[in-house]
Amino acid sequence: MRDFTHDHSALALNTATLGHNLPGHGAGWAPERIIDECAARGLAGIVFWRREIGTRAVGIGERVRAAGMQVVGLCRTPYLVGAEAGTLDEVKASIDTAAALGAPVLTVVTGGTEPGTKGVAESQKILADRVAAVAGHAAGCGVNLALEPLNPMFGGNRTVLFTVADSLRVCDMVGAANVGVAVDVYHAWWDTGLADSCAAAGPRILGYHLCDWLADTCDMLLDRGMMGDGVADLRAIRAAVERAGFTGPCEVEIFSARNWWQRDPREVLDVMVERFRSLC
Amino acid sequence: MRDFTHDHSALALNTATLGHNLPGHGAGWAPERIIDECAARGLAGIVFWRREIGTRAVGIGERVRAAGMQVVGLCRTPYLVGAEAGTLDEVKASIDTAAALGAPVLTVVTGGTEPGTKGVAESQKILADRVAAVAGHAAGCGVNLALEPLNPMFGGNRTVLFTVADSLRVCDMVGAANVGVAVDVYHAWWDTGLADSCAAAGPRILGYHLCDWLADTCDMLLDRGMMGDGVADLRAIRAAVERAGFTGPCEVEIFSARNWWQRDPREVLDVMVERFRSLC
Repeated sequence: MRDFTHDHSALALNTATLGHNLPGHGAGWAPERIIDECAARGLAGIVFWRREIGTRAVGIGERVRAAGMQVVGLCRTPYLVGAEAGTLDEVKASIDTAAALGAPVLTVVTGGTEPGTKGVAESQKILADRVAAVAGHAAGCGVNLALEPLNPMFGGNRTVLFTVADSLRVCDMVGAANVGVAVDVYHAWWDTGLADSCAAAGPRILGYHLCDWLADTCDMLLDRGMMGDGVADLRAIRAAVERAGFTGPCEVEIFSARNWWQRDPREVLDVMVERFRSLC
Repeated sequence: MRDFTHDHSALALNTATLGHNLPGHGAGWAPERIIDECAARGLAGIVFWRREIGTRAVGIGERVRAAGMQVVGLCRTPYLVGAEAGTLDEVKASIDTAAALGAPVLTVVTGGTEPGTKGVAESQKILADRVAAVAGHAAGCGVNLALEPLNPMFGGNRTVLFTVADSLRVCDMVGAANVGVAVDVYHAWWDTGLADSCAAAGPRILGYHLCDWLADTCDMLLDRGMMGDGVADLRAIRAAVERAGFTGPCEVEIFSARNWWQRDPREVLDVMVERFRSLC
């Protein structure tokens, strides 16, 4: 395993960390400004959200690579199951955006329990069918699909995958080489089975998302912590994903309405680099 | 397995369902009124909270039994780990209250990650040591300790147990016959390993807590659903606990600031009975 301590060549920014330009949050940086600021700090790459890309995927991807970085991934597909599921055509369109951007990984947040069913088992099967229905299209575009399990507090209307083990079970049902899993500290830090699940995942780990779990988390969606400010065992989790063979960049994704989204994005990036070098 | 459908002889009330008499919530019923209303509806028993009992544990327990019901349990110990942990003497005092009430089960909510540590593994070991330090006192009082795993959204400052499997691992570390686990729908509905964990628990399942998980849960603490209003597979979970050998009452525990706590408690009890008979 590489020793990344005091090195941030493996660090990537998920643009959500800079506030998504939601009302009252973030500095309103266009993708070009984000690219320049990340390149100036020596980051490995960037993960964008579809809302920021619009129809400019090709140009933004080219600019990232011209700046010496990678497009690490794109967030995310429409929901595939649940009351708010998109159509398969909408899912394929998100795959096309990832391809145009040159993103090797598209994150899948599944959506919630399928209407008319209870629990999660039936929804996981329906999810597998729908992922299977788009996996070939994604493979043809050179895009991998990362099934991201979410913290169980997001059950009901946002996800039917709660652990890496859940995601792997659906991967097995799908049986496609370009379908894997994303491991996110915020969602998975509590799981005492995580190291075993990562080992079982092996090369199917397509992304590693960093933040921290604040002991006094006060909002389900928008109160993530900067690395070091919470209780997650960040070194143990990174060791688990790297023991499994993951060599991609670590992607910092911090939704933080009460703290980091209130700050100057340049400060956020500087702190992110420093914490990554010293703690992750 | 008994077929409880259309039968509510296995139904118990956790008094939290009536609003705890928090400001603006609940009708302010004293324990005596709660006992009378539950007895009038043919319930099997009641679970109280320490705040409602004060120094009147003996008299309240006698009144429940005189009304033909059981005291099913008492909520709960002070935290045993984390920044807000109580002392072992405070934990023993809660055990004494359970004994005075005639409650066979005292629920343990563990508290969060121990200061100075990261993750949960170390805190689980410290928890086991502290449970072991009071288990003998509890056994001498005829009180069983139910380690309740909480939904992972309560990690950090409320719990270090997230699944029934987590609780069983700590039970094994403690190794005392009167230490087991509580299975709560709100906390465990999402866990695809739940049936296996219940089978592994066997007679160590000391309580089964009912409510429902609302698809659009909008508050971590106080937005639980009435049975039937959410997405949990209630029949499957009850089947799992009963296949494991659990024969105790099903305890309805619904924290619901926006809905059920706003209603007349008589209506809440009537709906609870009807839903239990038809859906659980």
